[in-house]
Amino acid sequence: METNVQTRHIHGILVLIAMLSPAVRADEGMWLYTAPPRQQLKERYGFEPTAEWLDHLRLSSVRFNSGGSGSFVSSRGLVLTNHHVGADALQKLSDAEHDLLATGYYAKSAAEEKPCVDLELNVLVNIRDVTERVNAVVTPDQSTAAAQEARRGIINTIEKEEFDKTNLRSDVITLYHGGEYHLYQFKKYTDVRLVFAPEQDIAFFGGDPDNFEYPRYDLDICFFRVYENGQPAQIEHYLDWSEAGAGDDELIFVSGHPGTTNRLNTVAHLEYFRDIQFPERMNTIRRREVMLQTYSQRSLENNRRAKDELFGYQNSRKARLGGLAGLQDPALMAEDELRAAVAADAELKSKYGSAWDDVAHTLKTSADIRLELNLIEGAGAFHTTLFDIAHTLVRMAAEDAKPNPERLNEFTAAGRESLEQELYSAAPIYSDLETVKLADSLSQLMEQLGAEHPLVKSILAGQSPRARAAALVAGTTLADVDQRRSVAAGGQQAILESQDPMIQLAVLIDPRARELRKIFEQQVEEPQRQAYAKIAAAQFKVLGTSTYPDATFTLRLAFGTVKGYEQDAQQILPWTTMGGAYSHAEAHGSVPPFELPQRWLQRRDQIDGSTPYNFVSTADIIGGNSGSPVVNRKGEFVGIIFDGNLESLVLDFAYTDDVARAVSVHSSAITEALRKLYDASDLADELGR
Amino acid sequence: METNVQTRHIHGILVLIAMLSPAVRADEGMWLYTAPPRQQLKERYGFEPTAEWLDHLRLSSVRFNSGGSGSFVSSRGLVLTNHHVGADALQKLSDAEHDLLATGYYAKSAAEEKPCVDLELNVLVNIRDVTERVNAVVTPDQSTAAAQEARRGIINTIEKEEFDKTNLRSDVITLYHGGEYHLYQFKKYTDVRLVFAPEQDIAFFGGDPDNFEYPRYDLDICFFRVYENGQPAQIEHYLDWSEAGAGDDELIFVSGHPGTTNRLNTVAHLEYFRDIQFPERMNTIRRREVMLQTYSQRSLENNRRAKDELFGYQNSRKARLGGLAGLQDPALMAEDELRAAVAADAELKSKYGSAWDDVAHTLKTSADIRLELNLIEGAGAFHTTLFDIAHTLVRMAAEDAKPNPERLNEFTAAGRESLEQELYSAAPIYSDLETVKLADSLSQLMEQLGAEHPLVKSILAGQSPRARAAALVAGTTLADVDQRRSVAAGGQQAILESQDPMIQLAVLIDPRARELRKIFEQQVEEPQRQAYAKIAAAQFKVLGTSTYPDATFTLRLAFGTVKGYEQDAQQILPWTTMGGAYSHAEAHGSVPPFELPQRWLQRRDQIDGSTPYNFVSTADIIGGNSGSPVVNRKGEFVGIIFDGNLESLVLDFAYTDDVARAVSVHSSAITEALRKLYDASDLADELGR
Repeated sequence: METNVQTRHIHGILVLIAMLSPAVRADEGMWLYTAPPRQQLKERYGFEPTAEWLDHLRLSSVRFNSGGSGSFVSSRGLVLTNHHVGADALQKLSDAEHDLLATGYYAKSAAEEKPCVDLELNVLVNIRDVTERVNAVVTPDQSTAAAQEARRGIINTIEKEEFDKTNLRSDVITLYHGGEYHLYQFKKYTDVRLVFAPEQDIAFFGGDPDNFEYPRYDLDICFFRVYENGQPAQIEHYLDWSEAGAGDDELIFVSGHPGTTNRLNTVAHLEYFRDIQFPERMNTIRRREVMLQTYSQRSLENNRRAKDELFGYQNSRKARLGGLAGLQDPALMAEDELRAAVAADAELKSKYGSAWDDVAHTLKTSADIRLELNLIEGAGAFHTTLFDIAHTLVRMAAEDAKPNPERLNEFTAAGRESLEQELYSAAPIYSDLETVKLADSLSQLMEQLGAEHPLVKSILAGQSPRARAAALVAGTTLADVDQRRSVAAGGQQAILESQDPMIQLAVLIDPRARELRKIFEQQVEEPQRQAYAKIAAAQFKVLGTSTYPDATFTLRLAFGTVKGYEQDAQQILPWTTMGGAYSHAEAHGSVPPFELPQRWLQRRDQIDGSTPYNFVSTADIIGGNSGSPVVNRKGEFVGIIFDGNLESLVLDFAYTDDVARAVSVHSSAITEALRKLYDASDLADELGR
Repeated sequence: METNVQTRHIHGILVLIAMLSPAVRADEGMWLYTAPPRQQLKERYGFEPTAEWLDHLRLSSVRFNSGGSGSFVSSRGLVLTNHHVGADALQKLSDAEHDLLATGYYAKSAAEEKPCVDLELNVLVNIRDVTERVNAVVTPDQSTAAAQEARRGIINTIEKEEFDKTNLRSDVITLYHGGEYHLYQFKKYTDVRLVFAPEQDIAFFGGDPDNFEYPRYDLDICFFRVYENGQPAQIEHYLDWSEAGAGDDELIFVSGHPGTTNRLNTVAHLEYFRDIQFPERMNTIRRREVMLQTYSQRSLENNRRAKDELFGYQNSRKARLGGLAGLQDPALMAEDELRAAVAADAELKSKYGSAWDDVAHTLKTSADIRLELNLIEGAGAFHTTLFDIAHTLVRMAAEDAKPNPERLNEFTAAGRESLEQELYSAAPIYSDLETVKLADSLSQLMEQLGAEHPLVKSILAGQSPRARAAALVAGTTLADVDQRRSVAAGGQQAILESQDPMIQLAVLIDPRARELRKIFEQQVEEPQRQAYAKIAAAQFKVLGTSTYPDATFTLRLAFGTVKGYEQDAQQILPWTTMGGAYSHAEAHGSVPPFELPQRWLQRRDQIDGSTPYNFVSTADIIGGNSGSPVVNRKGEFVGIIFDGNLESLVLDFAYTDDVARAVSVHSSAITEALRKLYDASDLADELGR
């Protein structure tokens, strides 16, 4: 097998990193739009995308800041994403009487389109390489602390300059672990309205048991519409709709926002994941899953309140379980071939050879501070939105008093609108749920840092975790958005004088939280960035530059073919059908989460059971790609990514196409369902127009 | 508040350990039948139990070796326990077509009474103090290792002598942490047959959400019958049945087998629980809960297979959560008053003063070996019955070659029958479930001891945890009982020659497992026993001997009154009614686990809705008491313990009667349900006769 060393590859359970050839294998890659995989597409598929083709697909792609992807599918601002990407917005539009997750929703007219509480969508309109300007402020003799501060300063400055010039959201993105810096500018939509969602029972049919499995039968879709000046936005770039959808072995493209991959990571770094980070994180995830499950089961209303957050933890748990299984497979932990290649060449060795040990050194620091960092700066000890609000207010007051280049990145001028969108969200906050969450996380704080830790003692103030949590949630007024605005308006003075116990808690922990963040940024993040920049440079030297960077929740282009696979000696077809959903329900006794919605049962005879429903492809995706459009050579919408199978979770660390598959909803199932099950022909008719 | 120092007390959230008075507070205590609380009963209730009264209650009490309590309720061997105590037996009698947990069961005739697969019941027929004989072999100048071996030797010898003499199961029980040793002799019943069980939906109505909560509405009962020589056993001591049951504020007694309490523990020891043992154990419990839940939800048959084990972990999780909440309450961690009293008296100090530091020293050792001990000797890394069987066979072959006094306690002659009852159990073993469990526990092994640990590498044999687990389960033949017998018959030779991979694994880990056990027994258990024996002796000196030892899963007598309590400023009545079950279901949407069985819905009008159903009392209970009979002054059966409320979970460490309550099923609900809902009048008529 030929391979690119940057990216590990798995073939079956064997890693065959062999020839140090620059050719990227098969359908691998989460490519930058500025460096698309022209060679691979031409050689494998005889396809040569034009600049227009690429621009059109990029500008039709949408990022959901809540953590997912989507696309424009009509000229009137219609956006299609996954139900599970929209679920957070649906939850916030629901109350005890109107549970949009349970019932679904269809706005038959513009007047019925429901404004979302705090959703922000981004479209990537400009990209510029600013590597030289960023690197110019960092000199080789600088300490890592000085380098980190200088880099933060120039990044904050570029972002502000560009924002002031264009009024576009302007983010400097670190690519190739610091090998390059690109300025990404986004058109931002904050007036986003709900148009259509099916019942969660069918969107997430099979629930947690079927999550990351295949075959699947999920209508995991949700439509929003973006507005400007109170009117549906006029959109130039939107996707044509393919009624036929993709066929067997057809070449398809995925345009979306993969969150994070770790393919360049050194073996020591992966071992750190395997031995420390993943097991600890999974303990926290399972703890929260069980805590929320217990809360949920106490009543139907509890269940509604905690549903979306519970899903998030279940999803993370299953994803990480797959990732950890990959890390625990000795086959993945082959020695670094690139490191060997560098060590064998005197010039490369003197320039880049130290990078691997540098990474290892940062991992020691990381291990030393990790618990406190997660609990205090990461707020793992304060698992409640109310604390997040308090801490944001406390920090905003302090950061606003500083010059822009010196601020923490999330408080710079360029990002203020997005910050306020979240801070002043009117999303409901349930004090009983917040108390349960906070009590459990304070208990975890006591377990992990110890009851005698001075900061722990100050935080608990002589009370048990339960009693302290109850007092904090009962005592704060920050559930009220007006209170937040009034504290913010008062600046540092208002913070210092505040009698709000949650603000006082945030004030109490902030000094230590900042120290921890500084240690992390200067002794872990920055030296890691420098070391990986060297490793990336070494890779460019050894393999050439035609490659893609690790994922960073920014727009990427992937490609692949529609293709089944073999599992337990059985051939899994690439397709399921809508009719198959009924058999799947029956095989599981038709009890939740395998219960079809009433309308599916009542109208069973009205749909064409042979309509393709979900399908798998070899495209290289990871978490964050949820909701990504799948398009054909003509750029037509043929499906929407909503999951990967369990075997795909190892894509975090290495690409494989033996059994790893991306899972999509087929375009023809979407229109079939809209027309025949949901009486939403108007919506179906609007697609691609 | 007056208090006995040995036992912590909690009053509200404050611990008021004040006067070092010998009076045990209120309804506190899990008393030995050989030292009943005569003074307390007389003073508080004017009740003086006779020797006959005590003997009758003791001999009517039954221990379930699967981990619970019960009682004889007819002369023809009828035993009443909780459904959740019988669930293990019900599960083993079920298959994919006949799920006794789901449907319940009623044997209308003796022929229909179903023989259980591996259930053993014990009745405590003789008690003798053997403290002098045990202590005679231990001399002050002995090393702890020598002391531990000498003690094990004499205990094994006493047990064998007594077993040979009487053919009764003979166990030497350590009481007062080594302050006393009693020989307990049990009549054993191994032909146990299922007579009646309701549907699990009503036995465990409210499921995990309602577990450890109150008010409750559970018919948590299950009837078995013991047989001798193929006929129902003739029982002399069985309980009379009270149709009326207990009334408000009535004095009641509980005779059962509390598992473990830690009331004598030093503060350092409780801190060890709080900071290390409980958090780690809860991580494992949650891990297994989530793993089994995920497995269960894949199909209805999976759900059936894993149900009982899943319940066990959910139950443990909730119990420990309550215990940890108690430990994390600063009020519990007051300084040791007894220690201060000892330090203040020169003679006591020189005799007993070192004990507290001795305990602290053992905790350090315990912390050092805990992970490996749990994983290897405790088999936490090998979470499958198939490994337990393999390891038992491997050890049995080795231990049988030694003289009886030198054997590990579970392989001595006196316990052989009980051991074989379990080893040759025909309970079904599902290879898919065993593979999932083993894969997860091998993954935990890799996480906790590290991938590079030599023993871990040997255990995994170059494979990933998943692949290794699949190979081990697929390769072993020990699911077959005949294979087990044939390996056992072959002795050490058969073990050494075995090609069974599970036996080979047990052989591989056994040397290290034995080393760990030896370290634990000689450097933790024995010095702890010696130190706590000193603390117990100091307590006898300071407070007199009229007290009770920590729980040891042996028969104890508790007492209390039927009494409600206040919660969240609301008065909770001591009683619920059968009619209340219907309202409780409706308030939760009548969906599982709040779904009543069909017969309850259909016959709603036929029962008297005002019949008392569940009730609470102040009796001092803990896990293991499940199924204990609750009797009145006349010794009549008035209810059956099945739970404690969340606030009672702190009873592990200290008694309180402010809000901690034991929860029981009322006797009148049992007969009402049998007669009117289950067409089981014959069974109802047999009660007390």
